[in-house]
Amino acid sequence: MATDSVHQVPRTSDRQTRRKNETRAKLIAAARVLLARQGAEATRIQEITEEADVGFGSFYNHFSSKEEIVEAVLSETLVSQAAAVAAVEKEIDDPAEVISAAHRSFVLRARSDPDWGWLLLRLDASHDLVTNALGPFARRDLKAATKAGRLNVPDLGVALSAQGGAMIAVMRSVVDGTAPEDADIFHAEGVLRMLGLPADEAAEVARRPLPAAVTEQP
Amino acid sequence: MATDSVHQVPRTSDRQTRRKNETRAKLIAAARVLLARQGAEATRIQEITEEADVGFGSFYNHFSSKEEIVEAVLSETLVSQAAAVAAVEKEIDDPAEVISAAHRSFVLRARSDPDWGWLLLRLDASHDLVTNALGPFARRDLKAATKAGRLNVPDLGVALSAQGGAMIAVMRSVVDGTAPEDADIFHAEGVLRMLGLPADEAAEVARRPLPAAVTEQP
Repeated sequence: MATDSVHQVPRTSDRQTRRKNETRAKLIAAARVLLARQGAEATRIQEITEEADVGFGSFYNHFSSKEEIVEAVLSETLVSQAAAVAAVEKEIDDPAEVISAAHRSFVLRARSDPDWGWLLLRLDASHDLVTNALGPFARRDLKAATKAGRLNVPDLGVALSAQGGAMIAVMRSVVDGTAPEDADIFHAEGVLRMLGLPADEAAEVARRPLPAAVTEQP
Repeated sequence: MATDSVHQVPRTSDRQTRRKNETRAKLIAAARVLLARQGAEATRIQEITEEADVGFGSFYNHFSSKEEIVEAVLSETLVSQAAAVAAVEKEIDDPAEVISAAHRSFVLRARSDPDWGWLLLRLDASHDLVTNALGPFARRDLKAATKAGRLNVPDLGVALSAQGGAMIAVMRSVVDGTAPEDADIFHAEGVLRMLGLPADEAAEVARRPLPAAVTEQP
């Protein structure tokens, strides 16, 4: 097992850390390709290390099981999609629209990439995974919108939990095929109402065209 | 394995069915006592059959595993609590208040009975379990409120998914200790807004006193 001891001279430690991070990134990139191609069930750890071109044993320096690397892949896709939404915030003046775009982008992803949706929503840890990956983005967006006076909630923490849980449940209904065509819009409309936007404004904001960058799959 | 063949004469079949249902009810009642007393981990199937005073083997006529009877117990507690809320609907004129009371009662239950909350929310199947147990009640209440013109939603199915997911997430935050004191009120307020009640009315309805029958644990 590689160790990054604090007692080593910095230069060696830096190089080791960098190499370790590179190996981790290679493993995640490889797992992502394999998961998309053949699903989690069919993917073996040895295939991941072969695809990543790293030794089989080095897998266990980074992950203790296949489940753990699957969670890491999902976490990375969630964060990179949230980052893609955050990147277009500069073009969107209305902080309520930013929140609508974020929710819609994840509901739409569940429809356009159902394998990813199943993988995410079937996990024991799906709630924690989504909360950890997207919570910081959601908190920042909601704070900005309330500070601007555009939205208001009785309690920030409860509102964040509720909107996260609502999103997961709606994504699940998309993946299992029970959601209607415009589930992303209906869901965003509900979330905006919950966050204090009057119904007529919520309906209008939730139907604004989405920036292309938000719906591209990272 | 007991069989309820359709080819048996009705009288025998009826008696067998009744006895089978009685055994199942005894097993669930016994499991409920043991789960409350010592938790799921520590409870063995043999203890359940002893407490129920039925033969060990008959357990497997009804359940394939401990997990299955735990899910049955949870499902029964959810349904009986929803039924308790439904029973006070006669005393509540406002269909929005009924929905508020239902949501609040489950969030409060997660606080007053954290063992039950953990048991429910740690399950792989917690989302499906809650949806199956409470979905019919939630659907009926929301339909009644929209028919009365008190609430309105862009899509009934999406609204039901979203409110269910929001409730599970808020219950989870209660159980893990991150929710504020009045999480039940804040959550109900958010749900009422989501379902189309203006913010000032949602704040008022969510704070109405709860009928005692709603918060008693069945």
